[in-house]
Amino acid sequence: MSKKYVYLFKEANGSQRELLGGKGANLAEMTNLGMPVPQGFTVSTEACTRFYEDGEKIGDDILAQIDEKLKESEDIVGKKFGDVANPLLVSVRSGARASMPGMMDTILNLGLNDQVVEGLIKLTGNDRFVYDSYRRFVQMFSDVVMGVSKSEFEKIIDKMKEEKGVVLDTDLDANDLKKLTEMFKAHYKNVQGEEFPQDPHTQLIKAVQAVFRSWNTERAIEYRRMNDIPSSWGTAVNVQAMVFGNMGETSGTGVAFTRNPSTGENKLYGEFLMNAQGEDVVAGIRTPLPISQLESVMPEVYAQFVEIANKLENHYRDMQDMEFTIERGKLYMLQTRNGKRTAQAALKVAVDLVKEGMITKEEAILKVEAKQLDSLLHPTFDLAALKAADPIATGLPASPGAAAGHAYFTAAAAVQAAKTHPVILVRLETSPEDIKGMVASRGILTARGGMTSHAAVVARGMGTCCVAGVGDLTVNEEEKTFVIKGKTYKEGDCISLDGSTGNVYEGMINTVEAELTGDFGEFMGWADDVRVLKVRANADTPEDAAAALKFGAEGIGLCRTEHMFFGGDRITAMREMIVAKTVEQRKSALDKILPMQRSDFEGMFKAMEGNAVTIRLLDPPLHEFIPHTDEEIKILSQESGICESALKDAVVSLHEFNPMLGHRGCRLAVTYPEIAEMQATAIIQAAINVNKDGMNIVPEIMIPLVGEIKELAFVKQLVVKTADMLIEEAGVDMKYMVGTMIEIPRAALTADEIAKEAEFFSFGTNDLTQMTFGFSRDDAGKFLSDYYAHSIYESDPFARLDQTGVGKLVDMACKLGRATRPDIKLGICGEHGGDPSSVEFCHKTGLSYVSCSPFRVPIARLAAAQAAVKFPR
Amino acid sequence: MSKKYVYLFKEANGSQRELLGGKGANLAEMTNLGMPVPQGFTVSTEACTRFYEDGEKIGDDILAQIDEKLKESEDIVGKKFGDVANPLLVSVRSGARASMPGMMDTILNLGLNDQVVEGLIKLTGNDRFVYDSYRRFVQMFSDVVMGVSKSEFEKIIDKMKEEKGVVLDTDLDANDLKKLTEMFKAHYKNVQGEEFPQDPHTQLIKAVQAVFRSWNTERAIEYRRMNDIPSSWGTAVNVQAMVFGNMGETSGTGVAFTRNPSTGENKLYGEFLMNAQGEDVVAGIRTPLPISQLESVMPEVYAQFVEIANKLENHYRDMQDMEFTIERGKLYMLQTRNGKRTAQAALKVAVDLVKEGMITKEEAILKVEAKQLDSLLHPTFDLAALKAADPIATGLPASPGAAAGHAYFTAAAAVQAAKTHPVILVRLETSPEDIKGMVASRGILTARGGMTSHAAVVARGMGTCCVAGVGDLTVNEEEKTFVIKGKTYKEGDCISLDGSTGNVYEGMINTVEAELTGDFGEFMGWADDVRVLKVRANADTPEDAAAALKFGAEGIGLCRTEHMFFGGDRITAMREMIVAKTVEQRKSALDKILPMQRSDFEGMFKAMEGNAVTIRLLDPPLHEFIPHTDEEIKILSQESGICESALKDAVVSLHEFNPMLGHRGCRLAVTYPEIAEMQATAIIQAAINVNKDGMNIVPEIMIPLVGEIKELAFVKQLVVKTADMLIEEAGVDMKYMVGTMIEIPRAALTADEIAKEAEFFSFGTNDLTQMTFGFSRDDAGKFLSDYYAHSIYESDPFARLDQTGVGKLVDMACKLGRATRPDIKLGICGEHGGDPSSVEFCHKTGLSYVSCSPFRVPIARLAAAQAAVKFPR
Repeated sequence: MSKKYVYLFKEANGSQRELLGGKGANLAEMTNLGMPVPQGFTVSTEACTRFYEDGEKIGDDILAQIDEKLKESEDIVGKKFGDVANPLLVSVRSGARASMPGMMDTILNLGLNDQVVEGLIKLTGNDRFVYDSYRRFVQMFSDVVMGVSKSEFEKIIDKMKEEKGVVLDTDLDANDLKKLTEMFKAHYKNVQGEEFPQDPHTQLIKAVQAVFRSWNTERAIEYRRMNDIPSSWGTAVNVQAMVFGNMGETSGTGVAFTRNPSTGENKLYGEFLMNAQGEDVVAGIRTPLPISQLESVMPEVYAQFVEIANKLENHYRDMQDMEFTIERGKLYMLQTRNGKRTAQAALKVAVDLVKEGMITKEEAILKVEAKQLDSLLHPTFDLAALKAADPIATGLPASPGAAAGHAYFTAAAAVQAAKTHPVILVRLETSPEDIKGMVASRGILTARGGMTSHAAVVARGMGTCCVAGVGDLTVNEEEKTFVIKGKTYKEGDCISLDGSTGNVYEGMINTVEAELTGDFGEFMGWADDVRVLKVRANADTPEDAAAALKFGAEGIGLCRTEHMFFGGDRITAMREMIVAKTVEQRKSALDKILPMQRSDFEGMFKAMEGNAVTIRLLDPPLHEFIPHTDEEIKILSQESGICESALKDAVVSLHEFNPMLGHRGCRLAVTYPEIAEMQATAIIQAAINVNKDGMNIVPEIMIPLVGEIKELAFVKQLVVKTADMLIEEAGVDMKYMVGTMIEIPRAALTADEIAKEAEFFSFGTNDLTQMTFGFSRDDAGKFLSDYYAHSIYESDPFARLDQTGVGKLVDMACKLGRATRPDIKLGICGEHGGDPSSVEFCHKTGLSYVSCSPFRVPIARLAAAQAAVKFPR
Repeated sequence: MSKKYVYLFKEANGSQRELLGGKGANLAEMTNLGMPVPQGFTVSTEACTRFYEDGEKIGDDILAQIDEKLKESEDIVGKKFGDVANPLLVSVRSGARASMPGMMDTILNLGLNDQVVEGLIKLTGNDRFVYDSYRRFVQMFSDVVMGVSKSEFEKIIDKMKEEKGVVLDTDLDANDLKKLTEMFKAHYKNVQGEEFPQDPHTQLIKAVQAVFRSWNTERAIEYRRMNDIPSSWGTAVNVQAMVFGNMGETSGTGVAFTRNPSTGENKLYGEFLMNAQGEDVVAGIRTPLPISQLESVMPEVYAQFVEIANKLENHYRDMQDMEFTIERGKLYMLQTRNGKRTAQAALKVAVDLVKEGMITKEEAILKVEAKQLDSLLHPTFDLAALKAADPIATGLPASPGAAAGHAYFTAAAAVQAAKTHPVILVRLETSPEDIKGMVASRGILTARGGMTSHAAVVARGMGTCCVAGVGDLTVNEEEKTFVIKGKTYKEGDCISLDGSTGNVYEGMINTVEAELTGDFGEFMGWADDVRVLKVRANADTPEDAAAALKFGAEGIGLCRTEHMFFGGDRITAMREMIVAKTVEQRKSALDKILPMQRSDFEGMFKAMEGNAVTIRLLDPPLHEFIPHTDEEIKILSQESGICESALKDAVVSLHEFNPMLGHRGCRLAVTYPEIAEMQATAIIQAAINVNKDGMNIVPEIMIPLVGEIKELAFVKQLVVKTADMLIEEAGVDMKYMVGTMIEIPRAALTADEIAKEAEFFSFGTNDLTQMTFGFSRDDAGKFLSDYYAHSIYESDPFARLDQTGVGKLVDMACKLGRATRPDIKLGICGEHGGDPSSVEFCHKTGLSYVSCSPFRVPIARLAAAQAAVKFPR
């Protein structure tokens, strides 16, 4: 017997998310809970996988099961697919394991054709509704299944409205809509070269195929990559009996959240439109009413909905995002899912649910997406600056935060402009094609759409500020202008948005960092109680170190010293050192740098208030410190007094074919031991000085780019000799540690040897990733997009630690290192330290700490806590 | 009780090579065999290791043991160290586990001082001998122990000889030598600021320290690196009672081989000098007599020596290299060791020893150093050209082979000049400081020295042609000229050397490759019988393939296709492809290349006569195919008709920060699938065409730079689709294989996955080494010399496979690959494939084959056989 690929809603349940997708599993669960769900069936994600395995074909066995379940659905619903007398219409929706809002395509009213339409008119007596449904279906099917551009259909509608002199779709009557349908079908034939398909069964199978295909559209792949969703999951297809919100004034449709997804307030939140289909609400084409007003429109339906909403939240123990339709006064639930929410709302909901006794603290920790915290750290407007500004317009506060930037009207223009200056994306409304432009922008402004419009949902998910549905805003995308209250603004003009109030301002308003208090503090306290991994920050200045401390960092995991060579006099001394011909000349240049480095380290130690500080010795190749063009060299020579030919010689002799694989890291210390000696002197003297003031700093000196035990031993003895001499001279009892970066594959492979000399390992996963993959971050951009397009790589290995390859080396190095030195301190200081999935890996591998940029410390703290809840150790 | 660090010769034996060094162990062994060996003791290699561990100090326990063994030696010899009446003089010689000729320092006549000299004169009645010994000792001690330049002493001698109007040292009388000694001591005091040490015990300890220190001189480190000797071995020190070859006309000294080290002929071979110390023979300052003439000079001593020589060869079952001294008619053996020999001699000796029944074929295989075979493949003169040439001079045929080049007079000048043209190094005599210059030269010509002079020994070891001891040659190193029979030659003038006849020619004589026959064929047949590893060659042209086949290659392990894109029309088509903006343009350019590639592959397949051919798809980044300067672009544009701006755009868009980590290898095929398709088409069509002629080619298509299974799968399906279609179209039954390079660490780490798609692995150890170490070959040159100087790396990881790191990845990949696909074919095609120690590693790891340049195929065959003998699998 063939494997089961198709499930009636009533045959399944909410635990089958992987098989049936989130939507399918929840439809089954709601059915089991006895809620009013239009019945139907789900084609499983395994069928999607088969579809691709079979060369983008649906297998005969699966086709047979679809037929069978369609028949069973007909029996349940009491209607018949393609039957003129009593026709069953269906919606066909995608539904993956993870929610991918707006990314997958939906088809409504499937099953309509020229005959069924006649029957349906007889049945409902509502020819306007029937032709409205038919023209929608023709458009959606043409667009989603056959790839006929939606905008052409919109133009046909606009032209008809213009000819009739009306504004709203609802102003078109049945005859208009019938004519429209004929025009749509004609357009279809014109483009496709064949009639619009009239066989409902053909329509259904083509629609299912289209959903499967939509799993691999460019934008779906892009979304998955941004959200770490594997392409192997596939999508399910939900085929569900249609109910109609557009059957007249006792019909309607809406979406609602059990709590406010923007603030977390425990109050039903949402909007609805009477006489409309769901797409009207989601796409934001008409501006809907707040859900609370449904009470006065249809009190009984409202009461029933509130009851169902409460029941669902209690059942799922989380805030729910629901879609519903009212057909001729009867409520139907079309979907429920855990609601997307802002970081602020996520915190409040999590804390409230604990206080309401609904969930434990550990569960609460899992309810806030760590990455989202980022948005809490985003700027708000400087209050003083804000007071001086008057809003030029106000819209819906669709996604909190504040942003100022230059206006651009297309995603492409925004992406391009964002390379050089802050950008606000201004659109009539956004669509999934705009994703890249939205990612690149500081803020998003739309003329149309509500709180659940595409712009609003996506912006909240990304933590980007968004003001939506600004009625006073007219956008002319072709002319690249927008008009507010008679004033025209051009591309590049500056505006500011407050996503928390919905206000729009002219010009650039200064922004300030957010304060982290209230729910944040309480919630993060729970996270800190639970987590095992320590969280440190990468910081090179006392200011960064102070910020890191504020964000909860427990030490500095990586203090890069190269930046300390750049300021003012230092860079001149550094360049003197580089062009030096003898050890003595080099030492004399280094002597000038020493007091400055010492005072840098004193500043760092003081700022960290006694917390651990890991200092990395000079890492970049020396050519990074000197200019390269003749012009720059000439100027430098005049300014510094270093002779031009010496500078040019240095440029030539320091040239490298592959700087990433060149003379840098501890290789510098092998060639120029005096650099390491100077740095060790500065570090130890700084610690001695600071400890005199009552601190107890134990500096951790980190030797970078080690690939061989003897190399580490050589540089370590330079450091130890220098340090021990200084400590003895000072007559103090001070400890210090010497460790190494593990960032070269050979170091990981020989970590048992390396650990004989290293008191700690810090995984430099940026370089380790480059060398393990054999491509550099600077160059990989040119081909990685092709790799994403072919699903060869699904996420950027520089953003998300590659656990299969790089992770294997990390794991190996940890085991080997501990075998030699059981108490070895193990940390990570690549940019992965602030990426939640990488933090989880670090927890599972048993590292001591992760270190990331100060800004990402809260994310790392939460991700560490979530890892500890999921994988107790 | 303290560990034993010092051994009397009679307390030890020949098996203690690791502890006592080769010289010490053999002195012990000869003592045990009852041979006339001046007695003494050996300070062990462990004492050397202790010396460095203790910060270049000899521990008190070791000093005490030296004292003790010195006393016991006094009792054995019947003389007393420092005793005026009956003084013991000693030689102090280094002796490492492996022979390091000329690299370590020796001191003779130690124990002499102003008082002992007086006593010794009384004892011997030979004041000339005593002062000759004393002045030699002062000079050697000053040079070796205290670093006082030898040449200053030489100048003092030369000045005295000039004043006396004599030519030879032997023309100086006792008084002269006494005066010379005083002048030497005065010079010592002048330079050192203190008297020449008179206490024999101080002399001894300083000498032992100096031997230990000489283990880490730059030239010793350089020699070890060239010969793969670990620095951890250390050297032993041999302290041996002096016997004197310079005690008059019944004394003498010599060196001899049991067989001819140049040809292998089974006949005692060597030379001796009467009334001389050993250094006179080795340094080649006086030209010695053939050993056979000793028979007429001292028949009894000669007979005794022949007997000992036979006994030693039978005992060690190998050709021996012996040093002896005759003191007043009595023979003493000072050293024996397995003799260094030319490759030709090594082959003959090995084959003869088997035929004489002394050793087995397996033992014979181990007796020829694989690397040495290289020299057999070196050129000889073109006979026709040679007939037309008359030699301008003739010297000793010190190391066989032929060479033509430009004359240079210092090592440094030779190294510099060798970068651009062939070089002959011309020296009065060579010394260890000249090593780098000798390595860089095609041939070596010296005015002084015999067959066992420094120049001869080193040149034979390196397989470099050498003519030594040319009496007619006067070299003026300062003026950079040499004179032969009145004609002056300048730096840069061309000469030719025949190291097999000793002839020197004016101008450049053409050279031709050697024929490999006779002993070579027989011996290599034994090697082929024994080895398990297959040997393939890296070859890109039918000519190279034919050469590889001649050298015994069993297939092509790596055919790089990029060279096929360079010739004539191809490069223009290639450039058209690179600047193409559309897939169609690119395909049309590739269509032009296809027939040329196809015919290349047909040529390769035919040349290999049915043996396996592995073809790698295009590997280098595309920017390697276009010029980069404005000038070059302009010319190219005019020649090719490709517009200048398109070329410039390509240069800009193809620029990479780290080309090694950039857009190359299979990454090109992911971005431009049509390139891989064209190459697959060319390969398969070529195979189909050649197979029509009755061959049965199974092409092995190799996808480079893979790091991820999906990447390989993507490129593989391009190849398979293309190949299967062509095979079906042709209606033939042809097989082909698709495999991958393992050259990226991630590929090795995930080899179990990769093996699901790859039918074979070929380890690209060049890239794998770069990425595992994190440095590129092109850039590492700048700092690797510092690494060698600090003994961090001891050999070039690009020449000798790093077994610790890179080898671990190779081993891991083999195990993982076999776990998935037990019959997977495993090979190596990096340059390591021709390095004996790396071949041994490949054997031990269980690879199927190694692939190297055609020239190195015999080396790999022998190395594989040696590995099979040493590590049966």
